[in-house]
Amino acid sequence: METISTEKSFGGVQGVYRHVSAVNGCEMTFAVYMPPQADDGPVPVLWYLSGLTCTHANVMEKGEYRRVAAELGIAIVCPDTSPRGDHVPDDESWQFGSGAGFYVDATEAPYDVNYRMYSYIRDELPDLVAAEFSVDMNRQSIFGHSMGGHGAMMMALRNPDRFKSCSAFAPITNPMTADLSRDAFARYLGADQASWREYDSVALAEDGHTFPEMLIDQGDADSFLDAALRPWLFAAACQSGSGSGNGTDLTLRMQPGYGHSYFFISTFMEDHLRWHAARL
Amino acid sequence: METISTEKSFGGVQGVYRHVSAVNGCEMTFAVYMPPQADDGPVPVLWYLSGLTCTHANVMEKGEYRRVAAELGIAIVCPDTSPRGDHVPDDESWQFGSGAGFYVDATEAPYDVNYRMYSYIRDELPDLVAAEFSVDMNRQSIFGHSMGGHGAMMMALRNPDRFKSCSAFAPITNPMTADLSRDAFARYLGADQASWREYDSVALAEDGHTFPEMLIDQGDADSFLDAALRPWLFAAACQSGSGSGNGTDLTLRMQPGYGHSYFFISTFMEDHLRWHAARL
Repeated sequence: METISTEKSFGGVQGVYRHVSAVNGCEMTFAVYMPPQADDGPVPVLWYLSGLTCTHANVMEKGEYRRVAAELGIAIVCPDTSPRGDHVPDDESWQFGSGAGFYVDATEAPYDVNYRMYSYIRDELPDLVAAEFSVDMNRQSIFGHSMGGHGAMMMALRNPDRFKSCSAFAPITNPMTADLSRDAFARYLGADQASWREYDSVALAEDGHTFPEMLIDQGDADSFLDAALRPWLFAAACQSGSGSGNGTDLTLRMQPGYGHSYFFISTFMEDHLRWHAARL
Repeated sequence: METISTEKSFGGVQGVYRHVSAVNGCEMTFAVYMPPQADDGPVPVLWYLSGLTCTHANVMEKGEYRRVAAELGIAIVCPDTSPRGDHVPDDESWQFGSGAGFYVDATEAPYDVNYRMYSYIRDELPDLVAAEFSVDMNRQSIFGHSMGGHGAMMMALRNPDRFKSCSAFAPITNPMTADLSRDAFARYLGADQASWREYDSVALAEDGHTFPEMLIDQGDADSFLDAALRPWLFAAACQSGSGSGNGTDLTLRMQPGYGHSYFFISTFMEDHLRWHAARL
């Protein structure tokens, strides 16, 4: 692992790091904020998965998480959203390829060589973070925004023992049917939609996957709400799935007047950090 | 004035606007955050002047001012740092021309036509803000970073009745002698250094200008500290100038481990906003 930069901020250290990912077959960059409490021993880890077009840097610059993370003593890890590099197959669309990994393990050529973000986020990067930073991997939670909200919810539903808590800002709750993501699922995962269900929170809930509690904040002035995000589909699936009556306890908050950007995310960042801290 | 964008954030509205500046002879873009209290009547105004290479956007995205501004009920106005446009004379250096207006009124051709940031910040933009927003122009304060810290201090020293308070993050306190700015002063203002003194906080203090109080935060790991910023020169000038004994009451805080970036600024943003709110 190579250190690209470190900057003191709110008493802790915001770092940016690079490593060779065997899973993705390329160099990957990620950001870690270590709170001052890490000087005294391992701290819990909160994963933030970013949305379409983002790198590790967007939330690091605009998310306003450091003040509260420093108060609560939580490390914040912000991965990139896809493999990158001259040898990595890409596409001109902002909804596919670089910046649009959708946190799936692609099965279709030529994407199956590099686009393995599910395994990268679930296994490879946590192993690296555990080895390199003063963190307590028995205390992990996960959240994210939009495509990364999808990633966080899907990760939590499939790995409920790994994460103490899960939340999302404006997540794509049903990516296999959403305008924004359906084509990407087809190109990464092939024509058989049965395999898509493992990466779709609504389908996972319908198929009986549950997580104890989730928090979703969603702006009602979000231009992607009706065509892509549709949190009400996940709310319904939590009620109607085979986990019904014992399903995910979802707190869905519609936030009047808010959009899809970091101006929205930063407004509710503190609430989410305190939600996770109470459960970590 | 044209609205480029508005986004709800922390209960208020973060807007970006464009207008034709007669003073600068070009279109100028600026950002205004209006806190929720503005719905009930005019709110005080805090001006933030940005540093070299910045536009209005850097502090808007990375400065983390909205949470506390919304709590305190203060409008935050973030101007651009120079005139811009195909017809505006520029230079390849990041220390001169676009992004490097230094808040002076240039007297040397060809820069004297457009580079009139002192008059723009002092007169033209305040007139526009007063006309377009629900603000109380009898309650104005000013702060800034680096080149913009220089701008804020110089503006306050020359217009002590205009501003209720002044603070700076890592300001260039003596730009007429600093490596980062000396050449720009020569090209904007000509060879006669007598005219430079009106734009230099150390010279202004030496020449008897005072402001009741100032707060400066300065990281001691800031790579520009010794060659460009040197807050100790301003501290000394406050003591030794003709205003001696009745000079500016300076609070200079050296912050261990902090650098020159927004990771530093955002850490101390809340302190500065509360400093201004107590005086507005």
